[in-house]
Amino acid sequence: MEKSILNSVLEFMKASMNDAAHDILHVYRVVNQAMIIAEKYENDVDNDVLLVACLLHDIGRKAQFENPAVCHAQVGADMAYKFLYSLGLKEDYCNKVHHCIKSHRYRTDNEPESIEAKILFDSDKLDITGALGISRTLLYKGQVNEPLYVLDDNHVIYTTEATQPESFIKEYHFKLSKVYDKFYTKEAFSIAQKRKKLTESFYEELIREIDMQKICSIIDI
Amino acid sequence: MEKSILNSVLEFMKASMNDAAHDILHVYRVVNQAMIIAEKYENDVDNDVLLVACLLHDIGRKAQFENPAVCHAQVGADMAYKFLYSLGLKEDYCNKVHHCIKSHRYRTDNEPESIEAKILFDSDKLDITGALGISRTLLYKGQVNEPLYVLDDNHVIYTTEATQPESFIKEYHFKLSKVYDKFYTKEAFSIAQKRKKLTESFYEELIREIDMQKICSIIDI
Repeated sequence: MEKSILNSVLEFMKASMNDAAHDILHVYRVVNQAMIIAEKYENDVDNDVLLVACLLHDIGRKAQFENPAVCHAQVGADMAYKFLYSLGLKEDYCNKVHHCIKSHRYRTDNEPESIEAKILFDSDKLDITGALGISRTLLYKGQVNEPLYVLDDNHVIYTTEATQPESFIKEYHFKLSKVYDKFYTKEAFSIAQKRKKLTESFYEELIREIDMQKICSIIDI
Repeated sequence: MEKSILNSVLEFMKASMNDAAHDILHVYRVVNQAMIIAEKYENDVDNDVLLVACLLHDIGRKAQFENPAVCHAQVGADMAYKFLYSLGLKEDYCNKVHHCIKSHRYRTDNEPESIEAKILFDSDKLDITGALGISRTLLYKGQVNEPLYVLDDNHVIYTTEATQPESFIKEYHFKLSKVYDKFYTKEAFSIAQKRKKLTESFYEELIREIDMQKICSIIDI
């Protein structure tokens, strides 16, 4: 890829980010992860398309943040297309990047079809697995001022109840622990399975450490 | 302990807390942990003193939050003394609780001397070990809007540099990883050592997951 194009894409990505420091670190991790997976598909992957799609995959987040009805994958894909076309890149290339970004979002009807789109989807999703998934979720819960866990009226931690108040434990139970199955590439699936063990150990250890048995017998409610 | 006294102490504790939801969960964990350690010292521990000291150990935090020059352990000890004395409790009892609270703070010159003070100190400190320590630190970093890690100009993660910007990784390196040695009771030390392994695995896994090698070779800076 031409150095001047890459620099323009980097500048455009940085300028489009909402919470620069946090979001750019995520984008860099996704690029890095995608390049590792792409090595396994060597001749089948257009590395240029993949790199640009990874760098620009979240540029629609600002629009979604300002209007939650907007889908950041759809908006971001359109923004990327327009931007790349304005740089003089061919329609076919712009279309390939558009497809990757449009289909990267977890839980939409736009399934990734090209190998580049599948690698972007998987790399983005791997960023919520393992120690990274736990850390990012806890940082986010801190930002929105939600607790680690919530006790019910009997001083017992809510874990599996769907109607419990928001907390890290709820997020783990209903989201973080459920991201390990569906990946499009077997490389990503294999990375995820390795990370799964640590995530589960961490959760089980945390629940063990939040022992409330003694206090329940003292403060009998 | 008389039920009415316990209820008054609980009410006073709740009313004195700054960030109720978060701080009360911590207090409950400290009480629970202290009761587990106390079982090993059965006949030597005054469980009443220990319970009340644990429940009230952080009531000075609001004063320290409003004026950082104030030491929450000293202020909290004085507040607890006055409150307990007003309930009609004996001077000797109030003094014992005062000593526990005054000496519970990590890194002050007030060393805990009584067994109850040592157990409170250790139980409070255990709350920053293991999965709990990692989780509480990440939630806090989210609240104060600090990142998981910071990259230097070469896109390499800062880990050991003392002058690096604030982040979870810095906090781990300079604080979280250093709390495992000094405990007053051997029970707390033993619990801490068990938790240490998980903490270290989590940190190492996180660093492995934040791989930046590929992207550094693409975006050569």
